[in-house]
Amino acid sequence: MTLYKKLLTDYNTELNHSGMNGERLATRLYELSKIGSLESGGITRLGYSTEEKQAKELVIGWMKEAGLEVTMDGAGNVFGRLEGKENGPTIMSGSHLDSVPNGGNFDGPLGVLAALEVVEAWKATGYTPPVPYEVAIFSDEEGSRFNSGLTGSEAFMGKLTNEYLDQLFDEEGKSFDEVIKTYDSNREKFLTPSSKNKDIQLFAEVHIEQGKVLEKQEQPVGVVTGIAGPAWMEVTFEGKAGHAGNTPMDDRKDPVIAAGMFVSEIEPLPRKVSDSAVATVGKLNVHPNGSNVIAQKVELMVDIRDIKEEPRDKLIDLISEKAESIAKQRGIEVTWNLNTKVKPLPIQEELQEKIAVVMKELNITPTYIPSGAGHDSMILGERIPVAMLFARSKAGISHNPEEWTSLDDCVMSVHVLKRFLERVMEER
Amino acid sequence: MTLYKKLLTDYNTELNHSGMNGERLATRLYELSKIGSLESGGITRLGYSTEEKQAKELVIGWMKEAGLEVTMDGAGNVFGRLEGKENGPTIMSGSHLDSVPNGGNFDGPLGVLAALEVVEAWKATGYTPPVPYEVAIFSDEEGSRFNSGLTGSEAFMGKLTNEYLDQLFDEEGKSFDEVIKTYDSNREKFLTPSSKNKDIQLFAEVHIEQGKVLEKQEQPVGVVTGIAGPAWMEVTFEGKAGHAGNTPMDDRKDPVIAAGMFVSEIEPLPRKVSDSAVATVGKLNVHPNGSNVIAQKVELMVDIRDIKEEPRDKLIDLISEKAESIAKQRGIEVTWNLNTKVKPLPIQEELQEKIAVVMKELNITPTYIPSGAGHDSMILGERIPVAMLFARSKAGISHNPEEWTSLDDCVMSVHVLKRFLERVMEER
Repeated sequence: MTLYKKLLTDYNTELNHSGMNGERLATRLYELSKIGSLESGGITRLGYSTEEKQAKELVIGWMKEAGLEVTMDGAGNVFGRLEGKENGPTIMSGSHLDSVPNGGNFDGPLGVLAALEVVEAWKATGYTPPVPYEVAIFSDEEGSRFNSGLTGSEAFMGKLTNEYLDQLFDEEGKSFDEVIKTYDSNREKFLTPSSKNKDIQLFAEVHIEQGKVLEKQEQPVGVVTGIAGPAWMEVTFEGKAGHAGNTPMDDRKDPVIAAGMFVSEIEPLPRKVSDSAVATVGKLNVHPNGSNVIAQKVELMVDIRDIKEEPRDKLIDLISEKAESIAKQRGIEVTWNLNTKVKPLPIQEELQEKIAVVMKELNITPTYIPSGAGHDSMILGERIPVAMLFARSKAGISHNPEEWTSLDDCVMSVHVLKRFLERVMEER
Repeated sequence: MTLYKKLLTDYNTELNHSGMNGERLATRLYELSKIGSLESGGITRLGYSTEEKQAKELVIGWMKEAGLEVTMDGAGNVFGRLEGKENGPTIMSGSHLDSVPNGGNFDGPLGVLAALEVVEAWKATGYTPPVPYEVAIFSDEEGSRFNSGLTGSEAFMGKLTNEYLDQLFDEEGKSFDEVIKTYDSNREKFLTPSSKNKDIQLFAEVHIEQGKVLEKQEQPVGVVTGIAGPAWMEVTFEGKAGHAGNTPMDDRKDPVIAAGMFVSEIEPLPRKVSDSAVATVGKLNVHPNGSNVIAQKVELMVDIRDIKEEPRDKLIDLISEKAESIAKQRGIEVTWNLNTKVKPLPIQEELQEKIAVVMKELNITPTYIPSGAGHDSMILGERIPVAMLFARSKAGISHNPEEWTSLDDCVMSVHVLKRFLERVMEER
């Protein structure tokens, strides 16, 4: 069954109101799904690849059909502009079209198509927004090509440096400069931020949840409360290697025991700082990792996140104190350092409340969800007010061909986005 | 400084009594250390290598000089025989001359040279043993060539099979058959056990401790109470992979937490079954092992040892119960299986006591030590009474160029061995 047919199977056509058309949205999701499609049903559409470019060109065509004025900046970011009744600061909405290898069809495209669908609905109902509105496609959000991420939005905000770009090579060994030539771009254009970024009053992004909260709450759409900035803490416990047979239990300095205690004892700590904080040890390596050898050392990484900086940093403290107290208790050495520390982005409560009001009007019970993953909104949010909506993900799966959001939920996310944007524009 | 000079530096020449000569022992340790020597000060003398053969030939020369009648069996094991006043069951002592890659100069050679030194001392004092005595060199104890181990002693006891030998290849891809050709041997000879093994009344082995118990007790030599048979338990905790940012703490099935609890909670269990039991997790792998991914599964290996089978098996039960209770508590799957289970070899208490009596006569406080590592004695011990002595290891280091046992301790181990052998022979 094609993605189009699958989306339409259980679509509730009563959602086709206020200018919205589920079939159009399904058609576009389906057309995009053909670019970089794999037998798995998933797609590989890496940042700055031919596939990402084709996907942008397809959407640019739709933008033009809808009457938008299309521009592209030096980073390959695409903007489709609809003029408002008056001039003034722009309202922008969008997301990205690139994917991880063997990724899904909703992570990114839903946000771009939702922003465009708002224009289609306005056209259908004869609505002209009071201020200019732009649909944005940011390049290379996933960063799977250069092991980076958020390249388009960072360029847009003028955050990239020569030093950073110098170290980017794709898997084939192509430098960043070689790759962006295919976009008729170059370093200079890339590093010149768009003057556009100073003119935006609000950026709103629709994205799939990539989690299971909405599924549990049985709600189609949720309000994002903030975007968690990850801190990556590298911890090394160093003990004393020895023979697993000839070293009595009381004469050991076994770093595996210390690491085991650490992993299990930090598990309750996030709840102590906030409801949204999380800490994860997903990477752990034992050295020398021999069956009959007491290990010399254990290196592990703790991924620590929260949507607010203060509890996140409190959690970093609690976790590092735990590492030190366990090392002391076990008589072994510990070192730790933070090798990544991204500022979390809390979303203004006023904007969250505006979304919640719109949701209630549409009979949705507002569910407030922190975003654990990074998004283009996180980068724009450093200097621009942002609002973010999550659409329900089936089983919380993402970055996977199984990624799924029902057409009902996709359309509902557009209804919420549209009403919210109208409200913000009219209230100015 | 040469090994010879280093050994002699702090040698207490008062230990040169009862026919013993420390300088001779030091010379022989030094001459052996030249075969397969490395710049590190260590040696690489793998089983069935040219180096192991050279080392055997060197010792065979000394055996012949001492008047022993030398034979070699199909497995390359060497026996130097001294006839006794009467015929009858033989008393045997020895060890091995092969090493691990970049190994030390005492693990193996000390046991062979100690057994030969007893003959030298008897010669010097004009003593003829009441029964025949043989000095043994077993081939390929470490097993570093074929990733096996104890090959010589197993062949001697008739424990090898064609199936087992079929799967042995060295790092260069040479089959077992090709390699043993260099010993003028072949499969048939190899698989025919020596009739000698039926004629042995006792096998006694001197070996370095490879642990730190004697160093702590400040004793030169200790009594081995048994040889721990390892059981290797493979444990897999399987949870549910997820996004480290988007999965709330309360909605996780994280196998790393379960593995961490398991590792730390099994640590106190060995003490519950015996003073000598040990359990070690030295090998642990997380999948997929990504910094920002809640792991799907953790595979780990528990090395469980004791010198007696009953407490060792009790410990296996306690550890497997712990794996299951933690998995249940964390709501994740666990599977475990034993992929190695070697029978421990307890050493007869009567023989331990005989050694202890001799030690006291020599002003040594008997220290009773379980051997966590396997030795040729473990294989012979399945059908022959064995006794084993440990000589003090500096800092417990072995399988390493830093391996060290002082000449005082080497000579003292020969004094104990010699008196013990005489006592056993005379008491028959």
